[in-house]
Amino acid sequence: MADVKRVYDFNEGDASMKYVLGGKGANLAEMTRLGLPVPPGFTITCQACVEYYESGSRFPEGLDAEIDAHVATLEETMGKRLGDDADPLLVSVRSGAPFSMPGMMDTILNLGLNDTSVQGLIKQTDNPRFAWDSYRRFIQMFSKVVLGAEGDLFENALVAMKQQRGVRNDTELSAEDLERLVGQYKELVAEHVSPEEFPELADGGTVAFPQDVAVQLRLAIEAVFKSWMNKRAIDYRRLYKLQDDLGTAVNVQTMVFGNKGDTSGTGVAFTRNPADGTNEYYGDFLTNAQGEDVVAGIRNTQPIAELPQVLPEAGEELWGVFETLEKHYRDMCDIEFTIEQGKLWMLQTRIGKRTARAALKIAVDMVDEDLITREEAVMRIDPDQLDQLLHPQFDADASYDVLTKGLNASPGAAVGEVVFTADDAERLTEEGRKVILVRWETTPDDLHGMIAAQGILTSHGGKTSHAAVVARGMGKPAVCGAEALKIDAANKVVRVAGTDIELREGDMLSIDGTTGNVVLGAVELIEPTPSGEFATILEWADEFRTMGVRANADTPDDAERGRELGAAGIGLCRTEHMFLGDRKSIVQDMILAEDDATRERALDKLLEVQREDFVGIFKAMDGLPVTVRLLDPPLHEFLDDPRELEIEIVKAEAEGRDMAEKRALLAQIDSMKEANPMLGLRGCRLGIMFPEIYGMQVRAITEAACQLKKEGADPRPEIMIPLVSVVAELETLRAESEQIVADVQAEEGCDFEIPIGTMIELPRAAVTADEVAGAADFFSFGTNDLTQTTFGFSRDDIEGKFLPRYLSRKILPRNPFETVDAGVAKLVEMGCTLGRQTNPKLKLGVCGEHGGDPESVKVFYGIGLDYVSCSPFRVPLARLAAAQAALAETAQGSDNR
Amino acid sequence: MADVKRVYDFNEGDASMKYVLGGKGANLAEMTRLGLPVPPGFTITCQACVEYYESGSRFPEGLDAEIDAHVATLEETMGKRLGDDADPLLVSVRSGAPFSMPGMMDTILNLGLNDTSVQGLIKQTDNPRFAWDSYRRFIQMFSKVVLGAEGDLFENALVAMKQQRGVRNDTELSAEDLERLVGQYKELVAEHVSPEEFPELADGGTVAFPQDVAVQLRLAIEAVFKSWMNKRAIDYRRLYKLQDDLGTAVNVQTMVFGNKGDTSGTGVAFTRNPADGTNEYYGDFLTNAQGEDVVAGIRNTQPIAELPQVLPEAGEELWGVFETLEKHYRDMCDIEFTIEQGKLWMLQTRIGKRTARAALKIAVDMVDEDLITREEAVMRIDPDQLDQLLHPQFDADASYDVLTKGLNASPGAAVGEVVFTADDAERLTEEGRKVILVRWETTPDDLHGMIAAQGILTSHGGKTSHAAVVARGMGKPAVCGAEALKIDAANKVVRVAGTDIELREGDMLSIDGTTGNVVLGAVELIEPTPSGEFATILEWADEFRTMGVRANADTPDDAERGRELGAAGIGLCRTEHMFLGDRKSIVQDMILAEDDATRERALDKLLEVQREDFVGIFKAMDGLPVTVRLLDPPLHEFLDDPRELEIEIVKAEAEGRDMAEKRALLAQIDSMKEANPMLGLRGCRLGIMFPEIYGMQVRAITEAACQLKKEGADPRPEIMIPLVSVVAELETLRAESEQIVADVQAEEGCDFEIPIGTMIELPRAAVTADEVAGAADFFSFGTNDLTQTTFGFSRDDIEGKFLPRYLSRKILPRNPFETVDAGVAKLVEMGCTLGRQTNPKLKLGVCGEHGGDPESVKVFYGIGLDYVSCSPFRVPLARLAAAQAALAETAQGSDNR
Repeated sequence: MADVKRVYDFNEGDASMKYVLGGKGANLAEMTRLGLPVPPGFTITCQACVEYYESGSRFPEGLDAEIDAHVATLEETMGKRLGDDADPLLVSVRSGAPFSMPGMMDTILNLGLNDTSVQGLIKQTDNPRFAWDSYRRFIQMFSKVVLGAEGDLFENALVAMKQQRGVRNDTELSAEDLERLVGQYKELVAEHVSPEEFPELADGGTVAFPQDVAVQLRLAIEAVFKSWMNKRAIDYRRLYKLQDDLGTAVNVQTMVFGNKGDTSGTGVAFTRNPADGTNEYYGDFLTNAQGEDVVAGIRNTQPIAELPQVLPEAGEELWGVFETLEKHYRDMCDIEFTIEQGKLWMLQTRIGKRTARAALKIAVDMVDEDLITREEAVMRIDPDQLDQLLHPQFDADASYDVLTKGLNASPGAAVGEVVFTADDAERLTEEGRKVILVRWETTPDDLHGMIAAQGILTSHGGKTSHAAVVARGMGKPAVCGAEALKIDAANKVVRVAGTDIELREGDMLSIDGTTGNVVLGAVELIEPTPSGEFATILEWADEFRTMGVRANADTPDDAERGRELGAAGIGLCRTEHMFLGDRKSIVQDMILAEDDATRERALDKLLEVQREDFVGIFKAMDGLPVTVRLLDPPLHEFLDDPRELEIEIVKAEAEGRDMAEKRALLAQIDSMKEANPMLGLRGCRLGIMFPEIYGMQVRAITEAACQLKKEGADPRPEIMIPLVSVVAELETLRAESEQIVADVQAEEGCDFEIPIGTMIELPRAAVTADEVAGAADFFSFGTNDLTQTTFGFSRDDIEGKFLPRYLSRKILPRNPFETVDAGVAKLVEMGCTLGRQTNPKLKLGVCGEHGGDPESVKVFYGIGLDYVSCSPFRVPLARLAAAQAALAETAQGSDNR
Repeated sequence: MADVKRVYDFNEGDASMKYVLGGKGANLAEMTRLGLPVPPGFTITCQACVEYYESGSRFPEGLDAEIDAHVATLEETMGKRLGDDADPLLVSVRSGAPFSMPGMMDTILNLGLNDTSVQGLIKQTDNPRFAWDSYRRFIQMFSKVVLGAEGDLFENALVAMKQQRGVRNDTELSAEDLERLVGQYKELVAEHVSPEEFPELADGGTVAFPQDVAVQLRLAIEAVFKSWMNKRAIDYRRLYKLQDDLGTAVNVQTMVFGNKGDTSGTGVAFTRNPADGTNEYYGDFLTNAQGEDVVAGIRNTQPIAELPQVLPEAGEELWGVFETLEKHYRDMCDIEFTIEQGKLWMLQTRIGKRTARAALKIAVDMVDEDLITREEAVMRIDPDQLDQLLHPQFDADASYDVLTKGLNASPGAAVGEVVFTADDAERLTEEGRKVILVRWETTPDDLHGMIAAQGILTSHGGKTSHAAVVARGMGKPAVCGAEALKIDAANKVVRVAGTDIELREGDMLSIDGTTGNVVLGAVELIEPTPSGEFATILEWADEFRTMGVRANADTPDDAERGRELGAAGIGLCRTEHMFLGDRKSIVQDMILAEDDATRERALDKLLEVQREDFVGIFKAMDGLPVTVRLLDPPLHEFLDDPRELEIEIVKAEAEGRDMAEKRALLAQIDSMKEANPMLGLRGCRLGIMFPEIYGMQVRAITEAACQLKKEGADPRPEIMIPLVSVVAELETLRAESEQIVADVQAEEGCDFEIPIGTMIELPRAAVTADEVAGAADFFSFGTNDLTQTTFGFSRDDIEGKFLPRYLSRKILPRNPFETVDAGVAKLVEMGCTLGRQTNPKLKLGVCGEHGGDPESVKVFYGIGLDYVSCSPFRVPLARLAAAQAALAETAQGSDNR
């Protein structure tokens, strides 16, 4: 016997064991424990799967024996035997990872059927057609999933049989037809499956479909293990940042049949509405069908609310189960059930996925219902999901004709070009275009296209179809089941029923996943207005969080938006954006000035416009701090591209024109060219080399603040010096800035403090932060640049080049520009610790893009930063993530007590 | 009275007090203590100078009173009074910093003369001419140095007087002439010195030359304080990396006169030959002259060895002093003396500056003479100085005509264009040209030009002239006193006496500072062969040092040279150089290959040539480790410049030619262009993206080693992966490399270990070195790149741009690419500590250019590296610096006991 228990009966586990039994297995055990009607079965642990991979795709020793023992117990419980010719036990074999991966992994139904037991099934059901259909389905599924045969082979044989019999539907085929089909299927296996790959099935020179039920079971279990590492599963885990090394459990469960006539059925449901959170039963069912028929969207389903009208007893029982589950799990649940000849069976439950809107409403409602606490409510919202609430919507004022309407499957609106395949979606998006992926229905194979597309539009499938579930999870707009669309994917054309409109690849299309509307052409999109629950949850979050959240904003508009979304100031006001647009020519005059007088004239003009910028921003953030970063990028970014200019000159010269003046300009621009501008004359180095530029900016800031002070307002500017590597840079520029602040305040008759601090965005500044802190009132970690220099990665150069390869080869677990890297975090931590050693009053923040990434926010909370600053739309996410970090710490604190 | 003692009589101090009394003051005190004939006086401390600057250029409180007290004591000792009308005391006022700064700072002689005391001097000397000449000189010197008047004003008046009197030499002027000159000089002061600047001297609307001797003294002392911060002094300290905050002491000493007739004289001498180290008296003297006449090279001097023939008594006494000083200081001394009417006076002594060659010989000789220990001998050699021994010399096989010959003032040969001013030297050098600075004689104002030039050539001055002393210190070739050269600096032309040759700016010239030869045109230079003492000292150094020294070498020649110079292996063998020259086209084929077959063909060709490279290098380093770095630079470095290519295309197209093929090439090259190549696709990232390139290199290394093994040799290759930021890169490439090594060894039937390690050259690798060390046999810190990323400095972009400004504004104490920066060192230290935590056997080295910088070598020793690696010519320096670091630690250890 094995030392480790690798197989658990459903009555041996509970919901807490999801890392052992997988989510599905743990919840089946929990439902069994609760006394709910669950078909008996057992679960093979995730660890067994991990061991399988560790030992080079071999079953760990002892596993086979343990499975045999549990099969024996199951046979005893059910009073049936696998492969029996009188009353055979049939089982399903399903994957179940520690976290939900909808549709990502493979499932085998009706296992246990063979030439002998099919007769037993006939005897038991007195329904040869059902028995042969089950056997036929089993061979098809097993051959595809376990033996790796092309699914089309079997589908084609089925179609051929229907043609031969002159019928349209599968159901019209007779028991004899299906029996003949079983024979054909076995031949297909012999022809198309390689005996080298399955030596245990070799029979002469070909493969025989396995009649030994123990072999069936073993191969099916192994197939589930293998599915853990298929491309779809790996892609899915990458998208959701899930670990690859957890493994999947395998659930072996007694089969029940929803396709045994009109008192049978199957369905998928949620205890509340997962789209908007309304407290109502939600989902679909089909009578006389097996589970996959519902999910695959092949037949149109009935709303779950109608179940009691069709099957009153089972319906009533299901409502009771819903109540039990919600009370027990204290959350909205997602369930699968089957009704076999009137008897309800629960096949699965789990905490239901939901849109952000629904998550907020459910959390707030459950607090009102005294089911959960405010803290729990806050912890339950995934900050990343909030993003979808801030997604664009159709402009209410836009006028457009609705082409057709589908199901409002995932909220938010999107505009893009029509594409018909996931590959096209990916390719065009890489080219920088925006696309809408238009499919009959999506499958897990389409995942990469769904990730790439702006939105998804399908002509088939309901709100629990693959497209709907996945899109909601991604926070991506989706319209599903738009039946008017007649999609001819092969010819890349969509005809719209009832019109003569034809959509072709590249046509512009707009979809609204909140209403289900589909519109030809590009509709103007507007920013959303979040719900009341959004505000409530964030209010609660603000109660619990201790870390501040500011916005990165360069304009009065951005500042206002940031403030509306809860920013307590501006953590990064970039001034280089103020040097662009119609001001670029003034900036060029300044840079290229050949004498001081010309440069001063240009600077005077800039002073005026910069002052106006600051007045607007300080007004918008009245009473709150605004950290203004002095000019950062290399000056030559404001000049013409020298290569283009030279080409222009060469062409003109070829025509005999005199380009001496342009040549002089070119020489000047060339003299400013840098091999690595990222590491060149920029940031505070500009301030040291051209004191007049920073001087102008400091003057503009101070003058703007003085002006507002005199008007009775409360401007709170802070001056931030970028790209400091040694403290002497900061000391020098601080002294120069303080002088100008003092001068302006004397001129204006004002007197107020303007804190001066620095970005910490170079490793040297971080490791010598004890020195730097001596000259700084605050540090703001610029984690974008810090990531670039810590890794030696130029973001511009790597993201399209080796970073994708690094992610796919797992050299990096994630894009370090999205989620702060551990090495970079270590430098941030050093910077904080050393900085506070010298200056205990030092204010510490972060203003890289990581400030809006929930995972990074938690890291920064752990390091002990005072605030994060991020783009206005990420402010709510950061507020929530900061609250969760604080609550998690409190929880951990109490755990330790 | 002051709390702090700020003035010391010469009999109150000793040689150990150089940071208090300055070098000159401490040594004057020491000589006084030894009973040598030193004119009495006192020293104002360096701290007083520092306080002067700290309090905004004001004398610290109590200093005046302390000076007065010491003047009173001095007057008592001498039995004379300053300003006395019968027997006046005259003093010199000289600077004296803690370290020698020859000619850098100002001196005032004959202080104490005024209209009254000049009469007293006449009475005492019975020599009115001498008295008026002394007064005249004093006014001239004081007015220039203290009052800031133009020296030319006085020189012109002197010349005018000589013309008026129809005489050629100063000595032909009579007492009356000189008295009249004194009157004229006073008028010049009144006319040209601003009373606002010297309010204490204001008399009506003009300045009166001060008659109050106390005022003279106070102003002279302040002038010395001020000279500490003049441009020459600051430039000198920058060159020698000396601190700015030490301040200078001021020595006030009783005047003695070498210009009191033929039994008087003055000289400068060394106790041994400072050029080659020979144990002989060395130096020059002049009879009837004051000290500055010798140093300034105005009159031609007599060799010191002839002194006993001229002044036997003083000569004999001086030889005695030499012996006393050498025994006492246990080192070669540099002295200044004056003989006043037959009586010898010692004005200064210090440890003498010397060439590297002399330093080595003196150190080895003194060990032989039992004067010092081997440890002391090793500690006495400045590693930086060794460099000059490795400087080029004229090729012995080159044939050339000697244009003229001067003094062999500073060894080594140089070739460059003639320039006539220091500014021109600096400007042309910045343009990348090599120059020889040709001057009548240099002055401290020429320092920046001397730093810039390849070599220095003067027509006047001896071996102790300014040009000679400074050039030797810099290790820069110099030929001095080449009297045949008639230099017309104003018209930028040199006529060569006895020929009709004229040299003009830009003409190519060669000088040999070892022989004194000056040659027209460029002579071929060859590398030097160091002396026996060189080998002896380095042998001793090797006994004491514990840290290894390897060479950076990419070719068999470099490897051999490194081995000759004592390298214990190669720490960095760059392979990219093997991709250049005639191989570049193969590399281009490889990069631009459109299919695998083409790429493989190119790689096969490279494999062959790389294998040959390695065979050569491994042979040269037989039995010693050779660390081969796999390809590092961005691939596009091997391709054409896209801008140039596009210009070429545009021009050809303008002529109507079809450039489609070139356009395709351009598109391909452009697709590889990077915004910041330093941070892009290079280093191990290439290895991840193009495994076949690294694979080829690893194969070439292994095949070369196998081939040599089979020939009975002992190759010891090590494979180094560059630019690792995360351990997974190293793990991946290590696994791939190990596979290839195993494959090749199996093919070849060999079996030996090839260690695999990584460069630590990115901050992330340093801060996660605990992880990286898990996959590394060794770390080699690439401090060039580490400096770039730690600072965010692109070396290419900053060195000509803001780095000079940073150094002059003291934002950085020194160029961090020359001497390792403290912040970078901190990361190196983290890398070592973390790396050894994981892997205690980890070998740790450094292979950036810092490995050859003595100061950095000491830092690396302190961190605990196993070895440094540097360019072959720096190997001796590194050996010596490593020994000194070890000895310094031992010494410190004993001190602490």
